[in-house]
Amino acid sequence: MHSSDFQTVAIIGKYGDAEVKHSVAHLVEMLTAVGVRVLVERATAGELPTEAPHEAAGLPAIGGEANLVLVVGGDGTLIGAARNLCEYEIPLVGVNLGRLGFLTETSLTNVEGSMEALLAGRYQVEERMMLHIRVQRQAGDLTVERAFNDVVVHRGNIARMVEMETYVDGQFVFSQRSDGLIVASPTGSTAYALSAGGPILHPSMRAFALVPVCPHTLTNRPIVLPGHSHIEVVLVNNPGEVQLTLDGQTNFSLADGDRIHIQRDEHNVQLLSDPGRNYFDVLREKFSWGERN
Amino acid sequence: MHSSDFQTVAIIGKYGDAEVKHSVAHLVEMLTAVGVRVLVERATAGELPTEAPHEAAGLPAIGGEANLVLVVGGDGTLIGAARNLCEYEIPLVGVNLGRLGFLTETSLTNVEGSMEALLAGRYQVEERMMLHIRVQRQAGDLTVERAFNDVVVHRGNIARMVEMETYVDGQFVFSQRSDGLIVASPTGSTAYALSAGGPILHPSMRAFALVPVCPHTLTNRPIVLPGHSHIEVVLVNNPGEVQLTLDGQTNFSLADGDRIHIQRDEHNVQLLSDPGRNYFDVLREKFSWGERN
Amino acid sequence: MHSSDFQTVAIIGKYGDAEVKHSVAHLVEMLTAVGVRVLVERATAGELPTEAPHEAAGLPAIGGEANLVLVVGGDGTLIGAARNLCEYEIPLVGVNLGRLGFLTETSLTNVEGSMEALLAGRYQVEERMMLHIRVQRQAGDLTVERAFNDVVVHRGNIARMVEMETYVDGQFVFSQRSDGLIVASPTGSTAYALSAGGPILHPSMRAFALVPVCPHTLTNRPIVLPGHSHIEVVLVNNPGEVQLTLDGQTNFSLADGDRIHIQRDEHNVQLLSDPGRNYFDVLREKFSWGERN
Amino acid sequence: MHSSDFQTVAIIGKYGDAEVKHSVAHLVEMLTAVGVRVLVERATAGELPTEAPHEAAGLPAIGGEANLVLVVGGDGTLIGAARNLCEYEIPLVGVNLGRLGFLTETSLTNVEGSMEALLAGRYQVEERMMLHIRVQRQAGDLTVERAFNDVVVHRGNIARMVEMETYVDGQFVFSQRSDGLIVASPTGSTAYALSAGGPILHPSMRAFALVPVCPHTLTNRPIVLPGHSHIEVVLVNNPGEVQLTLDGQTNFSLADGDRIHIQRDEHNVQLLSDPGRNYFDVLREKFSWGERN
Repeated sequence: MHSSDFQTVAIIGKYGDAEVKHSVAHLVEMLTAVGVRVLVERATAGELPTEAPHEAAGLPAIGGEANLVLVVGGDGTLIGAARNLCEYEIPLVGVNLGRLGFLTETSLTNVEGSMEALLAGRYQVEERMMLHIRVQRQAGDLTVERAFNDVVVHRGNIARMVEMETYVDGQFVFSQRSDGLIVASPTGSTAYALSAGGPILHPSMRAFALVPVCPHTLTNRPIVLPGHSHIEVVLVNNPGEVQLTLDGQTNFSLADGDRIHIQRDEHNVQLLSDPGRNYFDVLREKFSWGERN
Repeated sequence: MHSSDFQTVAIIGKYGDAEVKHSVAHLVEMLTAVGVRVLVERATAGELPTEAPHEAAGLPAIGGEANLVLVVGGDGTLIGAARNLCEYEIPLVGVNLGRLGFLTETSLTNVEGSMEALLAGRYQVEERMMLHIRVQRQAGDLTVERAFNDVVVHRGNIARMVEMETYVDGQFVFSQRSDGLIVASPTGSTAYALSAGGPILHPSMRAFALVPVCPHTLTNRPIVLPGHSHIEVVLVNNPGEVQLTLDGQTNFSLADGDRIHIQRDEHNVQLLSDPGRNYFDVLREKFSWGERN
Repeated sequence: MHSSDFQTVAIIGKYGDAEVKHSVAHLVEMLTAVGVRVLVERATAGELPTEAPHEAAGLPAIGGEANLVLVVGGDGTLIGAARNLCEYEIPLVGVNLGRLGFLTETSLTNVEGSMEALLAGRYQVEERMMLHIRVQRQAGDLTVERAFNDVVVHRGNIARMVEMETYVDGQFVFSQRSDGLIVASPTGSTAYALSAGGPILHPSMRAFALVPVCPHTLTNRPIVLPGHSHIEVVLVNNPGEVQLTLDGQTNFSLADGDRIHIQRDEHNVQLLSDPGRNYFDVLREKFSWGERN
Repeated sequence: MHSSDFQTVAIIGKYGDAEVKHSVAHLVEMLTAVGVRVLVERATAGELPTEAPHEAAGLPAIGGEANLVLVVGGDGTLIGAARNLCEYEIPLVGVNLGRLGFLTETSLTNVEGSMEALLAGRYQVEERMMLHIRVQRQAGDLTVERAFNDVVVHRGNIARMVEMETYVDGQFVFSQRSDGLIVASPTGSTAYALSAGGPILHPSMRAFALVPVCPHTLTNRPIVLPGHSHIEVVLVNNPGEVQLTLDGQTNFSLADGDRIHIQRDEHNVQLLSDPGRNYFDVLREKFSWGERN
């Protein structure tokens, strides 16, 4: 047992889910029993039965003290945790609720075996890149954010196209009218970008997929750019509302003339996973690809 | 000269366009000079120079009295006119402002030649189908509309998927989560539906293209249905706003549980065009397809 | 029991398949026992155990005498039978070997129930259109054929594009360089054409899908044409071999200058199917589309 | 003038092209006049007028002695030269015949200006990765090759799918039945792979695009892999002929059981280009993408 690796483990659960609530209580008990100190994220803790003994903690405390974070829920919950915790560079493990995710491959049904394997050091670490987003309005910065999957610039509720100019490292790429433009990380390439016709990028890559959503010009096709690129999207000729959405979770209203700068973030996300299972195993299961003869 | 065909000609212009304003005045003069009675649609008339002699008319008067309607502007202007006038079954001619449209193939630069050809009977008539849309909420009908290009059920400004169940002639087709679902007429198949990956339907067809926009399930592909189909789209599990958009021009807010019924309209649109030019000539020019060797 | 409908039933089996051989013998026995006269197609009969009593018949005899043809195998076997028998307009029923097909929805595992239902008149008849193909070389006709799914004009074994000019009802559509061009019937729209990016056409339609395979020009998109169209594909500038393939089963070598004429065939295929199951049920199962909530 | 950079320049022309022949003679004269030693590739030299003074040389001599190679023709000619010369790591410049290529952006019409700029040191160097291919049959290696654009494993002239198993770094990816599988370099991503639905990879990337051609399983989508990947494609269950094609130019017949190993080659291609023109400028012109407002 590599007991030294994970002396303090934090747990974050999907908010408002009855099944998660019970699983978290169970995990607290299981880990405490083997001598691990357990921190329960404050909002998650608020949902636990009051009699369940646990130590609640905010994200900064988790960031400062935990050696491992268990995220119980779907891919969305893990993505949110990754965005909030990546600056602390603590390893994350996603625990799904029975339905295989791209990121949450450990299932609650065999969580005991998984915890044992983790505590015994039987895991692999995958470093995944994050996106760093800066929105510039006139002279100043409007906001600075991170995303794990994707940044989407898209029309608001009016059924009209968005118009954008895109630059890479200061080089003009194109003007485009479309429903929107997705800038996806390799992790995000199997999410919304895939539905929009983008390619799958291997998660070990340091690269961006630039995927237009229903572009007016049929030759506007997905473009893959190296991870050191500085991507700049400028809103032009948009009388109405334009939206910026991060990871399908956080929305900002943009105005014409706003400039969105996207680069690779200085921090990576560290995902722990089962060494007996690789990325292609997950893809094959999620997409019903052909198995070996 | 088939002078009897078009004794009364109405003109509708793109609203708020300076170039259109002058062209309309010029057309009025030209047609009046050859003995044609000209009606100028009231909003269009309101933009003409006051000294330009003309007879203003509302849409019902145009519908009742005109034998031909000239629509000056882009494809969007023609589509609006088609929607408003189709019940009168008056032939329409689209006059573009220099940029070839799918529907407005006559250009202002040679409008005199085109008018002469029309008045001399050198034209062909294309009958194009319209869409009939009925939105049902609980027991009653919320609205009944027409569209020429397409009906789009799509998410509002929140970046989340819409969930819908679709039925054709009462048969369940699928549940789908996506950015939206397009039901396009053959005319609309080269508009938004094409950007979303739909096929081109020949405009003489009586058929619908059902085109999902960025569907979550990758095997959800465009489906073409016969013109006598009754398509029903039911909104399910949508906590937020869902929008219905007709021809990219008219929007309605929908609520979960609403049922959208789409059928072929009882009226067709009649488009007049140059007999020396066919549909494939237009496609080839718009899409830069390969010319003959 | 509508005993009058199917007094003589013919059986055609997939060639060289051990499982099929036993199933055919079993079907012969079952049908004979209820007083149906059974004809076994000659090649299929040649594979039966010698002691199994049966009456062998060639396709013309089957065409002349049978009221129903059972086709035991996969979609490919049924397509071959449809091509060979369509001129006789005898209803066909596809019996699959355990794996649901688009056309062979009756499974061997419940073939007794299916036969009982058929003989009792519990079935629906679907009329599906066929393709008629005529290849013209210089003055004369090289060959005249039928296809149920698709006609594909494609490069031979040299990895170079084919160049073709396409005409519809004498109107020039485009010159295209590509891996090939598929002309699919509605039935064939879920076969090869779908892999090449074509739409699904409802099988009740009388229409063609013209689907380019990997076209050099990115704006060459699938086109749907009405069933009365006369499609003509002319080979131009092809120094090497070009192939014509019907239903993925029959190949012809073409030469530059050859003209392929494709129209709807005068005969339809009549497929019998379970009235409790519709086309969308099959699509949903084959494509894992979302089920009702 | 950086006269030291390019004291010896080699010229390779597209074979059998009358226009190229004259251009090469003109280039020889022009370069000789400014004191550059010119080597003309032997096959190209064989097409020059006998009275034109020039020094013919084979590829090894060019590889050993030239500081720069001018390739006169289309992208195909440059790709062939890159494959043959990449081990020498000599810079290449593509000179097109009037039609902009992805790789041959210098045009004959302004070749004098381009040569002056090159000799004066006004150029940028782009390093592009090559593909290294090894075909293994049973115990031994069948062949070892290079490709600049792509490696394609595809069916021969029979219209049936190829079946393959793919592995990356020893990890099983999928079994796939399709028309073929393309492994493209970033340079090749705008060639055949794009027609098959693949993404555009920025040419500075070290990555592969794995693009299925008309895959039977609709969820088989393009995958982008890092440049250090070892890709292995194994032919399984193919009774007939399978072909391997490199850069659309070189073909090999494969047999069932053959294993194709694809990695990044140890050599890069060095392309010289106009520093006032970047990759996106070329894409925008070739694909008619939207220009700046």
